[in-house]
Amino acid sequence: MNDTICALATAPGGALGIIRISGSQTLEILSRIFTKDLTQAHPNTIHYGHIKNGSEILDECMVSIFRAPHSYTGEDAAEISCHGSRYILNKILELLVQNGCRMAGPGEFTQRAYLNGKMDLSQAEAVADLIASSNKATHQIAMSQLRGHFSSQLALLRDQLLKLTSLLELELDFSDHEDLEFADRKELVELAKTIDKHILKLAHSFETGQTLKQGIPVAIIGKTNVGKSTLLNRLLKDDRAIVSNVHGTTRDTIEDTIDLQGVTFRFIDTAGIRQTNDEVEKIGISRTFFAIQKARIVLWVIDEKPSNEEIIRISEQTKNKKVIIVRNKSDINNNNNFTIVNFPLIPISAKHGTNIDTLESAIYDAADIPTLTDADVIVTNARHYDALTRAHKGIQCVLDGMGQQLSGDLLAEDLRQVLDTLSEITGGQITPTEVLGNIFKNFCVGK
Amino acid sequence: MNDTICALATAPGGALGIIRISGSQTLEILSRIFTKDLTQAHPNTIHYGHIKNGSEILDECMVSIFRAPHSYTGEDAAEISCHGSRYILNKILELLVQNGCRMAGPGEFTQRAYLNGKMDLSQAEAVADLIASSNKATHQIAMSQLRGHFSSQLALLRDQLLKLTSLLELELDFSDHEDLEFADRKELVELAKTIDKHILKLAHSFETGQTLKQGIPVAIIGKTNVGKSTLLNRLLKDDRAIVSNVHGTTRDTIEDTIDLQGVTFRFIDTAGIRQTNDEVEKIGISRTFFAIQKARIVLWVIDEKPSNEEIIRISEQTKNKKVIIVRNKSDINNNNNFTIVNFPLIPISAKHGTNIDTLESAIYDAADIPTLTDADVIVTNARHYDALTRAHKGIQCVLDGMGQQLSGDLLAEDLRQVLDTLSEITGGQITPTEVLGNIFKNFCVGK
Repeated sequence: MNDTICALATAPGGALGIIRISGSQTLEILSRIFTKDLTQAHPNTIHYGHIKNGSEILDECMVSIFRAPHSYTGEDAAEISCHGSRYILNKILELLVQNGCRMAGPGEFTQRAYLNGKMDLSQAEAVADLIASSNKATHQIAMSQLRGHFSSQLALLRDQLLKLTSLLELELDFSDHEDLEFADRKELVELAKTIDKHILKLAHSFETGQTLKQGIPVAIIGKTNVGKSTLLNRLLKDDRAIVSNVHGTTRDTIEDTIDLQGVTFRFIDTAGIRQTNDEVEKIGISRTFFAIQKARIVLWVIDEKPSNEEIIRISEQTKNKKVIIVRNKSDINNNNNFTIVNFPLIPISAKHGTNIDTLESAIYDAADIPTLTDADVIVTNARHYDALTRAHKGIQCVLDGMGQQLSGDLLAEDLRQVLDTLSEITGGQITPTEVLGNIFKNFCVGK
Repeated sequence: MNDTICALATAPGGALGIIRISGSQTLEILSRIFTKDLTQAHPNTIHYGHIKNGSEILDECMVSIFRAPHSYTGEDAAEISCHGSRYILNKILELLVQNGCRMAGPGEFTQRAYLNGKMDLSQAEAVADLIASSNKATHQIAMSQLRGHFSSQLALLRDQLLKLTSLLELELDFSDHEDLEFADRKELVELAKTIDKHILKLAHSFETGQTLKQGIPVAIIGKTNVGKSTLLNRLLKDDRAIVSNVHGTTRDTIEDTIDLQGVTFRFIDTAGIRQTNDEVEKIGISRTFFAIQKARIVLWVIDEKPSNEEIIRISEQTKNKKVIIVRNKSDINNNNNFTIVNFPLIPISAKHGTNIDTLESAIYDAADIPTLTDADVIVTNARHYDALTRAHKGIQCVLDGMGQQLSGDLLAEDLRQVLDTLSEITGGQITPTEVLGNIFKNFCVGK
């Protein structure tokens, strides 16, 4: 923690590259390689000059200066904005290391921000989620967590748990005075149940969080030549982004996804299913069946009225799934105006793009995503989910103990463990180094 | 030129992303989407706050403010430093466009810097070269050009051409006064020759420039099982960079290259040659022959003394090439201590890495790279080379005309064309829009 760290904070390959430096020696080290002495530089100022290795000019740069404690890490810090050449970025990093910096590990800037009290652990984790956020929903959840809404709810739970603990301890302290009236155990049970309900609500949000993070799985099924591929291409075509058009950008998604109203939908790759289920194909179970099993939403594409046998078969395979029947080629078979009991049916033309917006709305509605507000807390982190689940079990033990009329001191001890478990999430207690290492190892370098 | 432009200036995928804005409306537009009014912000200051779309917080950002004329473009400008999420970057760009910005085209910031007199055209082109620079040599050449060393030499040439022109015009003005003594034509011829020599020297540097930019081609030849692949892997292994180890970084080189003393050497991909020369293989001309043809340096790997026939054959095929005989497996055959007349021979062990540094030095020396100083001018740009070649032809016309005793007014006219041709390089004359478009189209967006 006492050394000065540096790292490349941007992806290589752009017009600009940013190198980040943090630590008490930041300004001294920079001044050795910059055309200007920066040791007395004012906070939040920008300085133009050359980064030099002896007489060799490495680049014309802008250096931004931040002073402790008003920086991201809470330490003296700086950012060098230089030309985005890998050679230049490498050379400047080398020069910084030669002059006393250490190359930062993944997430080390954010880890310092946490250790210096600039944010709690769940907020630090939200930084990584924010960088990885790819749509409105995941962005909103990460931003809410970064702004401390999850931390506030945990603080509230902590207050309630402390209140419960102290009431039970009061029972203990005055247990010799048989004439004193204690808090009613029934009231304490109610308070514990309220706390448990809140913890469970947070724990249950993890499923939504995971779904939003990974995208909602959608299967497109139907006979050959009904237009499944045309429909998929049509849906994918409507989803374009500005950054994707920037020179040098590539989409790094492995699967086909679309964003509808800020939520990612992921089309199940049936080619992949074919490869992995050769054995299964041989024994006569179709790929379609597996696609449906993996899906939450099933688009059943047809171009004529299906037989009753078909309808029954699909109905049986899609229990607990949302099915939308997509009647394609509506421009050709426009008099084919049937409906199917128990299934919503949307007529479209994939070829001409007719009614695709109605289909998109239906897909979004079928996902049944809760409407999120900026203050909503959705748990997306497995570490948090694990702690919440353990806290819930702890509270259940306390409730059981209350039922068995266990003494207040035993119950208070259990409650203290629940408090510690919840504190793991924000890192309020002293967090062991190996736990911190584990949390920050999945961060980008430079953050 | 009157609108305000914005673009992503960093590659997507890093911890941080930088969005750049330039134009007279920069501060007004930013103030509409930032938590703080920035219209009166001082130059070179950094401001922390939220970028907001109505009530939705898109990100916590640092905004750097630059004021005309002391900015890269010469206009009011700003940089938003935000989390490197594609979603966030997209949304902020969308928001800027909704509030009056236009998405910048490739190189548009640098084009504005040129049009606002912050740099000449050859310096603007050096910016793109600097971003693309991948080793010490290309970096040094681009930096020299950016710092105006090429421009200075062109200014010197221009002064000399103007002097020559005015001396010839003086001849013209006083041509009726037969008794007046004019500048000696011989002296004028000498001056023209000096100018031509300088122009030719610059034009000739283009070959070196191209070689340094593309990497020096090296062929590794030899019989099977002499250890060619092991040697290649050994050479490649010694070339590692810090940035390449950063999470998420990939090397985007297509060929295998190594950097020796700041110069790139490119190993000729014989697999590629095999594919394209099937016909040739059939008629019995070996792949080795084509690899040698494409190379400047040939590493001939052997593990025993080659026959005289072999030596003669390789000698014939490698005329005008630098050949280094690499005696591999020197650890095994250490008593096999032969030499070969006219060829340098270096004993190594590719497997154990013995003597590889000696081989690397020999490769570097064989490339015969002129020692560059920071002030050296090497032409790397085909547009510049074209202009220099035309200027040289122009001067040759003038010299011919002088030999034929043409009148000063005709020669002066030719010289003016040479001046115009050289001015194209720095853009001193008014440069047509289509030429500018052509120059900047290969830039990154955001620069």
